[in-house]
Amino acid sequence: MTYKVGLLGLGTVGAGVVKILQNPKGRHPLLPDLQITHVGVRSLTKARDVAISSDIVTDDLDSIVNDPEIDIIVEVIGGIEPAKSLILKAIANGKHIVTANKAVIARYGNEIFTAAKQKGVYVMLEAAACGGIPVIQALKQSLGGNRISELTGIVNGTTNYILSRMYFEGADFEATLAEAQKLGYAEADPTADVDGYDAADKMAILASLAFGDRVKLEDIYREGIRAITSADIGYAKELGFTIKLLGIAKRDVTQEDSPLEIRVHPTMIPLQHPLANIHGVTNAVRIEGDPIGEVVFSGPGAGSGATASAVVADIINIVAALKAIPNNINQLMGCSHEHYAEIAPIANTVTQFYARLVTHDQPGVIGDLGNAFGKHQVSLKAILQKNTIHDGLAEIVVVTQQVSELNFQQAIAAIRDLPTLHSIPTILRVL
Amino acid sequence: MTYKVGLLGLGTVGAGVVKILQNPKGRHPLLPDLQITHVGVRSLTKARDVAISSDIVTDDLDSIVNDPEIDIIVEVIGGIEPAKSLILKAIANGKHIVTANKAVIARYGNEIFTAAKQKGVYVMLEAAACGGIPVIQALKQSLGGNRISELTGIVNGTTNYILSRMYFEGADFEATLAEAQKLGYAEADPTADVDGYDAADKMAILASLAFGDRVKLEDIYREGIRAITSADIGYAKELGFTIKLLGIAKRDVTQEDSPLEIRVHPTMIPLQHPLANIHGVTNAVRIEGDPIGEVVFSGPGAGSGATASAVVADIINIVAALKAIPNNINQLMGCSHEHYAEIAPIANTVTQFYARLVTHDQPGVIGDLGNAFGKHQVSLKAILQKNTIHDGLAEIVVVTQQVSELNFQQAIAAIRDLPTLHSIPTILRVL
Repeated sequence: MTYKVGLLGLGTVGAGVVKILQNPKGRHPLLPDLQITHVGVRSLTKARDVAISSDIVTDDLDSIVNDPEIDIIVEVIGGIEPAKSLILKAIANGKHIVTANKAVIARYGNEIFTAAKQKGVYVMLEAAACGGIPVIQALKQSLGGNRISELTGIVNGTTNYILSRMYFEGADFEATLAEAQKLGYAEADPTADVDGYDAADKMAILASLAFGDRVKLEDIYREGIRAITSADIGYAKELGFTIKLLGIAKRDVTQEDSPLEIRVHPTMIPLQHPLANIHGVTNAVRIEGDPIGEVVFSGPGAGSGATASAVVADIINIVAALKAIPNNINQLMGCSHEHYAEIAPIANTVTQFYARLVTHDQPGVIGDLGNAFGKHQVSLKAILQKNTIHDGLAEIVVVTQQVSELNFQQAIAAIRDLPTLHSIPTILRVL
Repeated sequence: MTYKVGLLGLGTVGAGVVKILQNPKGRHPLLPDLQITHVGVRSLTKARDVAISSDIVTDDLDSIVNDPEIDIIVEVIGGIEPAKSLILKAIANGKHIVTANKAVIARYGNEIFTAAKQKGVYVMLEAAACGGIPVIQALKQSLGGNRISELTGIVNGTTNYILSRMYFEGADFEATLAEAQKLGYAEADPTADVDGYDAADKMAILASLAFGDRVKLEDIYREGIRAITSADIGYAKELGFTIKLLGIAKRDVTQEDSPLEIRVHPTMIPLQHPLANIHGVTNAVRIEGDPIGEVVFSGPGAGSGATASAVVADIINIVAALKAIPNNINQLMGCSHEHYAEIAPIANTVTQFYARLVTHDQPGVIGDLGNAFGKHQVSLKAILQKNTIHDGLAEIVVVTQQVSELNFQQAIAAIRDLPTLHSIPTILRVL
């Protein structure tokens, strides 16, 4: 059976979803079971970054959410309206929803999830926080055995890009923001990002799932990054810190019914902290729970491909659940393949190598080694003649360029036969 | 409806599972819907780290997998037999399986998944690779829209612990291994870990899910870490690298039907690589896919709590799927809460603060600041008198101890009134 998907929005995310579904090879075997039958757009004449039949494109978005043939509505329009009304109409019509809309979910999740529960439909929102990083599913499913005490995240890529550049380049906020706008990492009106509104939306969603309570957006304490200067970054470095815009949600799980702390603000974090080395537009979330301890997820928090990856994951989750009813098992939980992989022989591997050689400390050794490697097409990146170790023996360290394992092993075999060689204690591959 | 679970094994992982289920508060609302009705152990007399009624404990493991009342068998015995036979008998009896057994799955996954498919039961294995890190579910579900090109992981905690200590302390392999054995991080017979067998088992499982093909264990090229010396670690540092035991699986997705490369070996990796800063027993997996790009998961790869977290996630996945049939939605995918969180006022937050103050450069300023902070119970961790900036103004940077937001803001209000203060350009919280 094929499931019919109505796609609302054909911007970067919508186009990313279409591209995945148009090219299912090497992806999940459920993908061919779903079909985009309708695409709703604001402008029928705008050029699109994707090849799609004009027959299925319409600017009448209501006709899509009202179409009785459609099983799943994918809302990737963004913004509050008409997205919110379309989602509610689709739910009322018994359709399952996949949305990437953090603004709508953070503000109207209450109304939307209550309506969905009444109609017995799914509202999936993996793409609404942290793009492609599967943190929503982890909170809903994989970490379900845990009592979560803290969720801390870098959940806004624009501010992390700005703060990373300020940290590495010593630049000031205004100049870095202007540069980010020029490069497309920040909007012309940067308020939602730099003042922490976008991060607060995402934290409302993540904290709600982590702590099992709805969160009102207006309850989240929020500060942006406009006040950070290069002087602050300098002092942070001096003190062993970096500065990140963090979302922090925590609860004292040792106390009965303790309130939730939830806030978004620029934070100095020690350089050893797992979020300190998340740079650029990358997002990351650190979750602490009992009994798991600490887990960290990082990846692209935005962009066409990452967000589309999350949207498609949600669609196949719904399709797998629907196909499991009444008499089948959920294909996402079962094994989907039965044949064996063809494995490349190790000799075909292409990689860099590190070798530590012990040689007799006499002239011509380096030349002998260079000749042996060269004869087998092994180019060297570095050759370090180290000090004599003892008894006339010297240590030489070699790092190769990318070479084939077969060539390298042949060169090593030849080197083992050199009268100037004593031994090769270590060979390592280099990533 | 309550689902009945038969638990095979009551070692550290089994006891961890029991503890989660005995204490469901603050965890997933599905937990009370499942009940451990039978526990199979080898020895009835051994002391256990968990309070469980002796009525449900038996050393007749066959009786559990043959009990028609039981819905789900959780196998946490470890080792090949009797685990493998018990899993196959349970499947033949129509029971769903949750297993943490990487050795059995890596060797007999073929037979087990084929039998499970025939009987229409689930075999869940989140705990079989990387403990609590939800990487199996991500590969099966969340990343389903992606064409995965590479999966690289630190999947063995013992070797990562040894290599981390060698890196930070300059110690040699044998001494570090002995220390790890004394501390319980390595087995008396360390072969499975240090020679890479355990990592190969996990890579067979992870690669199979990532690339959608079964992988034969004997096809995986494997080298352990016994040959690594402190000299190699020293040269790695000199070259800007660290050394990790990596599992690497990759496929050239730009070519039709290219073979899978899969190998486990010690690897020099650049310090900027996301896996280079994964230290101690922590595991981490980096996945590269189209269109998502790069995602990284890290967390505890072993231990009672982390492994039990994964086992319980699998159990609730099965329970949610079973409850969804025939007329309900899968509760793991729906919203499970409808009330609002009580949010702590920001004034109650306890944190460290950083403040950058500009003052008139005259004697007594530090004393004025110290008095104002002290009067409001704000203890200082550091106060840095920086150079004069211009026009008789000096910059002072203050870092507090953990203090209440309310006290800190009251102190700052008092400081703003000091005649010696010019301005407070930045206040940041410190993690």
